[in-house]
Amino acid sequence: MLFLNKNEIKTAVTMEEVIDAIDYSYKIYETKQYQMPFRTQIMEGENTFLLMPCYTNESIATKLVTVFPNNIKEPTLNGLMILNCNKTGRITALLDGTYLTGFRTGAVGGSAIRHLSNENAKSIAIIGAGSQGLYQAIAACAVRPITDIYVYNRTKEKVPSFIKALSKWTDTNIHIHNCSSVENAIKNAEIIITSTTSSKPVLPEKSSYYKNKLIIGVGSFQPTMREFPKALYDTADQIIVDTEHAIDESGDITVPLKQRWVNEHSIQTMSSLITNKTKEISPRQDKSIVFKTVGMALFDTVVANLIYHNAKEKGIGLHLVT
Amino acid sequence: MLFLNKNEIKTAVTMEEVIDAIDYSYKIYETKQYQMPFRTQIMEGENTFLLMPCYTNESIATKLVTVFPNNIKEPTLNGLMILNCNKTGRITALLDGTYLTGFRTGAVGGSAIRHLSNENAKSIAIIGAGSQGLYQAIAACAVRPITDIYVYNRTKEKVPSFIKALSKWTDTNIHIHNCSSVENAIKNAEIIITSTTSSKPVLPEKSSYYKNKLIIGVGSFQPTMREFPKALYDTADQIIVDTEHAIDESGDITVPLKQRWVNEHSIQTMSSLITNKTKEISPRQDKSIVFKTVGMALFDTVVANLIYHNAKEKGIGLHLVT
Repeated sequence: MLFLNKNEIKTAVTMEEVIDAIDYSYKIYETKQYQMPFRTQIMEGENTFLLMPCYTNESIATKLVTVFPNNIKEPTLNGLMILNCNKTGRITALLDGTYLTGFRTGAVGGSAIRHLSNENAKSIAIIGAGSQGLYQAIAACAVRPITDIYVYNRTKEKVPSFIKALSKWTDTNIHIHNCSSVENAIKNAEIIITSTTSSKPVLPEKSSYYKNKLIIGVGSFQPTMREFPKALYDTADQIIVDTEHAIDESGDITVPLKQRWVNEHSIQTMSSLITNKTKEISPRQDKSIVFKTVGMALFDTVVANLIYHNAKEKGIGLHLVT
Repeated sequence: MLFLNKNEIKTAVTMEEVIDAIDYSYKIYETKQYQMPFRTQIMEGENTFLLMPCYTNESIATKLVTVFPNNIKEPTLNGLMILNCNKTGRITALLDGTYLTGFRTGAVGGSAIRHLSNENAKSIAIIGAGSQGLYQAIAACAVRPITDIYVYNRTKEKVPSFIKALSKWTDTNIHIHNCSSVENAIKNAEIIITSTTSSKPVLPEKSSYYKNKLIIGVGSFQPTMREFPKALYDTADQIIVDTEHAIDESGDITVPLKQRWVNEHSIQTMSSLITNKTKEISPRQDKSIVFKTVGMALFDTVVANLIYHNAKEKGIGLHLVT
């Protein structure tokens, strides 16, 4: 049994490899070669405990996550990934689930940029300078020749440390801009990524801001959470989701459907798009593409399996004696 | 995060402490101070993957178990116990789940012996010389002044190694008998414990064998599994189960109910018995007591929490750097 902490995972895989693993997950998703039972949830007051298992032809993995929003001294999110061999049932690896989640969610965004943005896109806006925003920016730089990253965060004080953390991952020739408003951050960006926990739109009600752009929503994972305004749906002619569950789980899909800003047939899964497309797509003239991710255990399972195999090959991690 | 393997768990707790923890679990069960969602199960061919979480006022724990019956070189059962702090959600410990399950199931039997057998019972029969039988015998010796252990196993070749393993745990003045038949094993035993995977009764159809005795069933955990014969229910006037689920899960309860050998009102949970009784009970004249366990995640959670706290106090286990 191999234990892999954050630093060991960092050494074991690159963002490019994890983006490839996300693309591979979509193929498994489209061909239905997996079992992904509904997650188990225990709630006590405001605290949540979640178990998300998934079985593929290559491994079995379970993500355990706790969300304790009132933690002050300790992280509000804790995660552990448990990997089992699907030939023998043996537990093969234990991985830091918090880091894995952040990194692979970045890669889900990276995969969307790879398939849905202009190949020579050079600029991105990150709205929400938390750890999710960080990995989104890293992933964008892995797949496009990014030269400018525009960052906006409601709590301004957090931006300098975000920029410091991001600059450790990015090339020195990439300019990271601390923006005073959302408008300033998005107006010149070809790709816009929102990664907040907002319950109401964080992007402005102005369609012209979104034309010819890819807009990625990472934050809203519950029907009560929203990041996208109506104006975005006015220009978006392609709405892509990472899983079918996004239609029920994210307020950025449920509200537009209920309000009839979009109809269900205009929403497509990334897996079907990747499987059926004949060439890369990108925003049409004066239109925008929306990509919305809510995540799924299948991503975690495929990525954890990749990390484990890389780590074994490279001799990384701590062997636990059972 | 503390990692505790089999040997470290062994050092951290005694069987007496774990039996006390089982009794404490029954109090939590009776007062309903827990959340125990239905287990998550993934099946693929003959292989099974299970997740069993439980939340108490003291901790959150999840048992992950795989059952791969066709494993030849590797164990058919694999288990991991993950313990979370219920104040912060932090993962506090990872424990060998296979060992914990065997040891705590022994303690469930030990608790039954403590509450349901004659205080000076000196002899037990173990039918089924696997690892479950081993921990049952160890637990019996922890709560009663046992002098004789009668062992029977269908595959005779397994008995010597069972006796060797058991003698490492027991006092030298305890005699362990290798019995040639079930009858020979049970006829002189005051407590009879069955721990097989049988689908039909392993005990003989003869009521006189069971009078004035406590009979504990460990093996049957599915409706298709049975260890007890009709004759046993003819003498049993008290049927105790470790959880209400035993009524649906074990063939040793479902079949007698269906055949009307017993009625549902004569079945009592151990938790109600412990909570409401005024004195220890034991088999009535010419009658027998049946105790049937199918287990529950609450046991694992309370025991894992005890092991973790003992280990921390004693400085046992490997600290994993996250």
